[in-house]
Amino acid sequence: MRALVHRFTLTDPGNVEPLAAALDAGTIAPGRIVAVIGKTPGNGLVNDYTRGYLSQSLALLIAAHTGETVTAVTARVPFIFSGGTEGVLTPHITVFSVVPGDGETGDSRPALAVATAFTGPLEPSDIGRGGQVRATADAVRQAMRQARIERPEDVHFVQVKGPCLTALAISQAHARGVPTAGDSPDKSMAWSRVASAFGVALALGEIDEQHFDESMMLRDFSRYSGVASCSSGVEVAVNEIVLLGNSRHWRGPLRIAHRPMRDALDITGVVDVLEDLGLSPRPQLAADDQRKLAAVFVKCEPDRSGTVRGQPHTMLNDGDMHAQRHIRGAVGALVAGVTGDTRLFVSGGAEHQGPDGGGMIAVIAHRSES
Amino acid sequence: MRALVHRFTLTDPGNVEPLAAALDAGTIAPGRIVAVIGKTPGNGLVNDYTRGYLSQSLALLIAAHTGETVTAVTARVPFIFSGGTEGVLTPHITVFSVVPGDGETGDSRPALAVATAFTGPLEPSDIGRGGQVRATADAVRQAMRQARIERPEDVHFVQVKGPCLTALAISQAHARGVPTAGDSPDKSMAWSRVASAFGVALALGEIDEQHFDESMMLRDFSRYSGVASCSSGVEVAVNEIVLLGNSRHWRGPLRIAHRPMRDALDITGVVDVLEDLGLSPRPQLAADDQRKLAAVFVKCEPDRSGTVRGQPHTMLNDGDMHAQRHIRGAVGALVAGVTGDTRLFVSGGAEHQGPDGGGMIAVIAHRSES
Amino acid sequence: MRALVHRFTLTDPGNVEPLAAALDAGTIAPGRIVAVIGKTPGNGLVNDYTRGYLSQSLALLIAAHTGETVTAVTARVPFIFSGGTEGVLTPHITVFSVVPGDGETGDSRPALAVATAFTGPLEPSDIGRGGQVRATADAVRQAMRQARIERPEDVHFVQVKGPCLTALAISQAHARGVPTAGDSPDKSMAWSRVASAFGVALALGEIDEQHFDESMMLRDFSRYSGVASCSSGVEVAVNEIVLLGNSRHWRGPLRIAHRPMRDALDITGVVDVLEDLGLSPRPQLAADDQRKLAAVFVKCEPDRSGTVRGQPHTMLNDGDMHAQRHIRGAVGALVAGVTGDTRLFVSGGAEHQGPDGGGMIAVIAHRSES
Amino acid sequence: MRALVHRFTLTDPGNVEPLAAALDAGTIAPGRIVAVIGKTPGNGLVNDYTRGYLSQSLALLIAAHTGETVTAVTARVPFIFSGGTEGVLTPHITVFSVVPGDGETGDSRPALAVATAFTGPLEPSDIGRGGQVRATADAVRQAMRQARIERPEDVHFVQVKGPCLTALAISQAHARGVPTAGDSPDKSMAWSRVASAFGVALALGEIDEQHFDESMMLRDFSRYSGVASCSSGVEVAVNEIVLLGNSRHWRGPLRIAHRPMRDALDITGVVDVLEDLGLSPRPQLAADDQRKLAAVFVKCEPDRSGTVRGQPHTMLNDGDMHAQRHIRGAVGALVAGVTGDTRLFVSGGAEHQGPDGGGMIAVIAHRSES
Repeated sequence: MRALVHRFTLTDPGNVEPLAAALDAGTIAPGRIVAVIGKTPGNGLVNDYTRGYLSQSLALLIAAHTGETVTAVTARVPFIFSGGTEGVLTPHITVFSVVPGDGETGDSRPALAVATAFTGPLEPSDIGRGGQVRATADAVRQAMRQARIERPEDVHFVQVKGPCLTALAISQAHARGVPTAGDSPDKSMAWSRVASAFGVALALGEIDEQHFDESMMLRDFSRYSGVASCSSGVEVAVNEIVLLGNSRHWRGPLRIAHRPMRDALDITGVVDVLEDLGLSPRPQLAADDQRKLAAVFVKCEPDRSGTVRGQPHTMLNDGDMHAQRHIRGAVGALVAGVTGDTRLFVSGGAEHQGPDGGGMIAVIAHRSES
Repeated sequence: MRALVHRFTLTDPGNVEPLAAALDAGTIAPGRIVAVIGKTPGNGLVNDYTRGYLSQSLALLIAAHTGETVTAVTARVPFIFSGGTEGVLTPHITVFSVVPGDGETGDSRPALAVATAFTGPLEPSDIGRGGQVRATADAVRQAMRQARIERPEDVHFVQVKGPCLTALAISQAHARGVPTAGDSPDKSMAWSRVASAFGVALALGEIDEQHFDESMMLRDFSRYSGVASCSSGVEVAVNEIVLLGNSRHWRGPLRIAHRPMRDALDITGVVDVLEDLGLSPRPQLAADDQRKLAAVFVKCEPDRSGTVRGQPHTMLNDGDMHAQRHIRGAVGALVAGVTGDTRLFVSGGAEHQGPDGGGMIAVIAHRSES
Repeated sequence: MRALVHRFTLTDPGNVEPLAAALDAGTIAPGRIVAVIGKTPGNGLVNDYTRGYLSQSLALLIAAHTGETVTAVTARVPFIFSGGTEGVLTPHITVFSVVPGDGETGDSRPALAVATAFTGPLEPSDIGRGGQVRATADAVRQAMRQARIERPEDVHFVQVKGPCLTALAISQAHARGVPTAGDSPDKSMAWSRVASAFGVALALGEIDEQHFDESMMLRDFSRYSGVASCSSGVEVAVNEIVLLGNSRHWRGPLRIAHRPMRDALDITGVVDVLEDLGLSPRPQLAADDQRKLAAVFVKCEPDRSGTVRGQPHTMLNDGDMHAQRHIRGAVGALVAGVTGDTRLFVSGGAEHQGPDGGGMIAVIAHRSES
Repeated sequence: MRALVHRFTLTDPGNVEPLAAALDAGTIAPGRIVAVIGKTPGNGLVNDYTRGYLSQSLALLIAAHTGETVTAVTARVPFIFSGGTEGVLTPHITVFSVVPGDGETGDSRPALAVATAFTGPLEPSDIGRGGQVRATADAVRQAMRQARIERPEDVHFVQVKGPCLTALAISQAHARGVPTAGDSPDKSMAWSRVASAFGVALALGEIDEQHFDESMMLRDFSRYSGVASCSSGVEVAVNEIVLLGNSRHWRGPLRIAHRPMRDALDITGVVDVLEDLGLSPRPQLAADDQRKLAAVFVKCEPDRSGTVRGQPHTMLNDGDMHAQRHIRGAVGALVAGVTGDTRLFVSGGAEHQGPDGGGMIAVIAHRSES
């Protein structure tokens, strides 16, 4: 098998012409699309409808090309969008497709592998709690098998999108006597991300299942997954998973690597992951190296201590501009400065996803020697 | 003469305890303070009162120590604050003081020189127009003489703070038949910055006075000052100027350098200015080099083309988060990633201040060899 | 003919279940839907994609029921959405459908009439200028004929939705040497509304065509249409018009009335228009009267003088919360307090639409005696 | 004794000229000022420094007139400011002063009485918990005695301002092992308001002290004070209390009344409280009645159910505009429409202050017959 990765700039979630053109031209086979990950131009918070809008637009487009129903496309292809392109970031999508069959020829080095999985529907009482953790862990294990990745250390990025609760949904749950994780939509988004992150960590053995306990969630930040990137939004009812790694069972010129980001100033983590892939920013990737970049995924968060390297930041006290909008714009610019590329997937809300106050970066690149 | 530069983290504009402690300890002589430049935690837009609040707090503090009246302190010391510490930025002040007399001893290499100047009061009809341009140019020339800097190329940073108009002031001016530059407070802020920038450019010969014409303003972006950094706010009625450069008539371990930033991804400009001063980010300044940093000043703006390096950004279309908040957070994080320091003066609104779509960076550092 | 008006609460632009249920139940015949006007939960500014999202969702739904293509539905049915449900406002749609044929029986009093029209595509050079004014005027005249309303005074509400320009579109136009009305997206939205309003005013004789001159636009605010309600957004390429009035050629229990709102505190205008329709708020409509309300449309704006009744407001100086978000929330709450109903179409940006600093209110209600 | 009430429009917290003029003119005796309550033009959230700025400006002004130190003024006069003048609201202050001695002459009807009190400093561990509740209750009882109001039902408004915690303060407390009420600044503000409200309710017997239990806080919303109006902010370290009521021991033409507001559409509550004072809005107060208004205080909140009168609102899901900004703008406009006056003290965050989802309104007016 061979994984293909195409990026398209899409500024309006209702306008998917660039992908339509690629489908028309045969560059991408619509039936082989297995996942789409992207950044949309909304606020990335509860009332960000750009994620759902782009999902609808893409499902319509793919369905029109494959003859599937829209529902069938949505059930088959995870559309995982993070809103918020603060600062220099560019709204865009990364389309993953899989070409079968040429696994036994050519280059035998490990290549990019991709697999997807879905949990069943999550109830309001599951979201942000043990139910979502366990369902996610099961789905991640299934995706790993599907990707034919044997060792957890060959998994470099697990993107999860899970549901969250609106104010109305929370209020209705409480009226029925159903407790919810988080009493506001914003908190519900955080709990959903946390449950997904613990699910990934359990599946990959980053946290020992026997020692897991719900009381760690949003409390013991020394526990985390180094490869999970979790989002939540009102536009999904199940957890959707896209797992990326390197596998000897896959072919092609693409590889993936990842590094932790220790804090929001960790330019070293950014440089290191690029060097892992044979790319050399001095201080920015030159044009040749930039062309080898296939996709960049970053997870980050405003340090909950209220400081960065001992100096105060104001992100958590700002009543007008959400802390997630602050941090995405900041870390996105740092990574864009090093890569010279603004089509970055930068997602906030990194609770238990990488070191506390930091996060992680994963990069897919073409082999340098190819 | 010797210029001293002290930075203090101040998160609440009403709490100037850290400076008070330095005055009490004798680290800084209150009567020798000549200027204070800083970042406050407001939104950096028209309704940002943190700038005025901090000015009031500092004037009270200095007056209490020198025995001057508050009015006398304010008339003598420019307090130039830019609001908006988006992302990783830290609210702080940089206090400039001047120690007389030791000019003839020791190291004869050029050292940091600082001088200040004020225009007379500007009328609503002057703001953002020729009147403000000419008054600023005169004040900059006066500051240059005062700093004993003979050559314009030895001027590395000219910070200007000028007045702007509120909605009410604009409406009152129009009712009296007085035209204003800009019909909204936001536009008035921009025109004021532009007039200040042209004033600096004329004074330093960056634009030939004979070729200057008001129609260039906010139109011909190929004309700019490479060292101007202009802010505007409702809290001042005159243009206040702080001019920084290197001069053989000054002594001490500090030097200043500057570089243009070609766009919001110009990490090379950041690295270059640090290397100009003998500091080596690889990719970030090591602790030893960080300690040599005395102050960093950055001017930036969202590219008016709606793109960065050919890819769309969303800063200018965002109805909820002002473009200036976007760009400060982005460029601030890039510079903080390279320097490892978040106490940066990063100011948006770089019209005619550095290359279009970019801006400039100026850094004061201790000599590396000292 | 008979005009039917149905309101549905729709909180998520991707979820049109309530209308789907009405179509399934036969309450509304999908092929008879002639227009949908509504409020979506976005910010109502340039980067509000909830309008386009809801349009796409509704077009898909109607197409699925009628067998038309999505393109055919969109070309036939104006979907006019205003984003921004600040404060107590509820996202909702008002669906207009027309039942033919029963014009000659029953009650002979004038009843609600509805008609729609579209201009051709508008170029960037037309938007906010004479081209858009004239095209709108032609379309309004055509809608009036279609509605069989002979006298302009029987027209009570003309909703127009027109295109506007993003930062990128403005920059591209300028690069081609094409001047645009407004140099920012926000300004482009305003100019588009203004051109539409003048188009309505010319068509209805509120402004004499011979005296019209482009220089009046955004300058002479004594010129306005008393019944125009104009929006703009990136999601349309033509002007779409929905015209409402009373006509003896129509039947049914619904009537429409309108009143100017002199300023943002004009509760008297709200009470008067309800009393025009036989409804009595004391101080709020009682449940019986509330049930007679079919739809409420309000246009409003932050007074450009910076004051309301001589006292300052802060809407135009606020860098974090757009003035349109301020005014919609304020005027929406005033009208909701009097009507007891939050499903109000409240739209900001009332330049030349009602008295300067105010706007207008139009109400459709069931006859009180019926 | 006689209570005097003066309102001044103050748009810039650094400009207190209108009050200075009144002091210079002798209209107000600076030493008799006992409290100042007002609205400032900030965002009313954690990072709103306009409250502290105005406090500093007023303390300086009064100290300059009385010869007191600034510290002495601040310790004597509660300055209670609520940020956020959304929509039509006007930044302003209401100055309370007390003239001694003329209690035994003239009109013997109950008149406006005012008293103030302060708690001792509150620790991070007290804020939002039992410690703050009890300290507030004691202070309210003391203020009631000072005001010579015997019966709780003669107390009509108790304004409390209490401290809250920034992100940094929360993080520092947690590092020391000190639990805090609320793990974010926003939540800390809410808990502080709640503790103050329970303190008022206990002091006035609205909740029986024996039945009070901390677990009611932010949980059992059927428990509330009908006259408490509680704010919190980083600018105070103790609870400051201003208590208003009617007392036979006081003289003068002013009276106060209050009514609950059942929800954000409760225009009837607004009309009723005006009629209690002999004022008749039809639908708005006529100019004569407007002149009798001395001050209006409103407390409100976004209904936590996510609905108003059964219809959804979007206030609690909005990631860009804080729910408190939504609700202040909405309820402020409703009250301004009825009174015809925009100088209203409208404060959000009404947890346990009036009916759940609503709040309260208190009005001071001159006797109608006088």
